[in-house]
Amino acid sequence: MLPQALENLVDAIGRLPGVGSRTAERYAYFLFKSDQKIARSLSEALDDLHDGIKTCPKTFALISAGETLSPLYTDRARDKSVVLVVEEPLDIVAIEKTHSFHGTYHVLGGVLSPIDGVEPKDLHIKELLKRLDDDDVQEVIIATNASVEGESTAIFLQKALRKASPAVKVSRLARGIPIGVDLEYADQITLTHALNGRTEL
Amino acid sequence: MLPQALENLVDAIGRLPGVGSRTAERYAYFLFKSDQKIARSLSEALDDLHDGIKTCPKTFALISAGETLSPLYTDRARDKSVVLVVEEPLDIVAIEKTHSFHGTYHVLGGVLSPIDGVEPKDLHIKELLKRLDDDDVQEVIIATNASVEGESTAIFLQKALRKASPAVKVSRLARGIPIGVDLEYADQITLTHALNGRTEL
Repeated sequence: MLPQALENLVDAIGRLPGVGSRTAERYAYFLFKSDQKIARSLSEALDDLHDGIKTCPKTFALISAGETLSPLYTDRARDKSVVLVVEEPLDIVAIEKTHSFHGTYHVLGGVLSPIDGVEPKDLHIKELLKRLDDDDVQEVIIATNASVEGESTAIFLQKALRKASPAVKVSRLARGIPIGVDLEYADQITLTHALNGRTEL
Repeated sequence: MLPQALENLVDAIGRLPGVGSRTAERYAYFLFKSDQKIARSLSEALDDLHDGIKTCPKTFALISAGETLSPLYTDRARDKSVVLVVEEPLDIVAIEKTHSFHGTYHVLGGVLSPIDGVEPKDLHIKELLKRLDDDDVQEVIIATNASVEGESTAIFLQKALRKASPAVKVSRLARGIPIGVDLEYADQITLTHALNGRTEL
C-alpha cells in the first residue's frame, strides 16, 4: 500500500520501544514531508552513534569516544567521597537535572534478576566495591528503581557494601508522596512509605 | 551530561511530532544499547526516503520512484468510476486496511484553511474534476476529517463537483457511534449525527 522506501522506514521506526505501526507511519510521513535536512541529520546522528560513544571504565557512565573518564567523575568540583548508584546511564541525566547532587555516579548496568539470569557478577558491583578504597568513599546512595528487582538489588548492595567496608554510610532515595499529588490519590504502598519515613519538623 | 553523539541523536529524534526529550532519550539509548544493525537499517531507510518516493500524478498517492502511476489506480480490479477523496496519503492506508473499498483514491494534499492560507488552488481539486470525465466517474466519496476545515472542504468539494458534473453522485463517510463505544460515553455531536443518520432496519 505504501512505497517500499516508506514501508522500510516505517518498519525501522517500528522497532523503537513502544512505537506501534500507526505512530511509525506518522513519524515516517513527517520525515518524508518535512525538509530533507531533518531526515539527513537523524541519519548522520545514527551513523555516528556507536563509534562516538563508549563506557567510562570507572563509573560506567556513557562518555564520548575521545574521553578517558566521565567528566562527572574527573570534575574537581564533584565530591568523590559520595557515590550515587543507578541502574542505567540515563538515570544520571534525571539526577543531574535536579542540580541537587554534587557527588559522583556509579552505573550498575542493570539489576539482579534471577528470571533473566542477571547475577551479581553481571553488574558493576566489584568495581563499586573497589571505589570504596580508591576514592575514600564515605557514603553510597542507592538509587535503583522501586521495582522488585531494584529493591532486591538495593538489599544485596547494602549487604555487600557493609561487608566490604563497615564504616561506609549506605542510604537509599526517600519514598513518599510526590510533589503535586493529593493525599487521596496516593497509592497505599507510597502512603505507607511516606508514613514510615516521616520527617520531624 | 550525555556524550555528544548521543545528544545529537536525542536532538534529531526530538524533532519528530509529539516526541518530548524523555522519549527521545529513551529511543536514542535503545538504539545505542541494541544491535548496531537496528540503527544502521534505520539510517539506510532514511537515506533512501526522499529519492525512493514520489507522488502519483493522477491520484497524488505516494508511489515508488520507479512507478509512473499508483498501483491502486492502475490495478484492473479497482473500479475507476468510484473515487474516494482523502486529505493525506496515509489516509489511504487506513481505508485499504478495511478491505471494504474497491474504487480508486484521490489525495487532496490538505484541507482548505483561510488561517493557514490554503486556498482551493493549493489542493488537487482541479485534477479531481478532470478525472470526472477522464475516468467516467459515477460516485465521489468525500472522506475528509471531521474537523472544521475538513467539513468546509467537503462542502466546497460537493459544490464544485455538482457544478462540474450534475449527474455524479457525491457522498460522505457516515458519522455515528463507533464500534465498542457505549451510548452513555458517546459525545453529543456524534450522537446527534447518529440520530440524524439512523438507518432503517
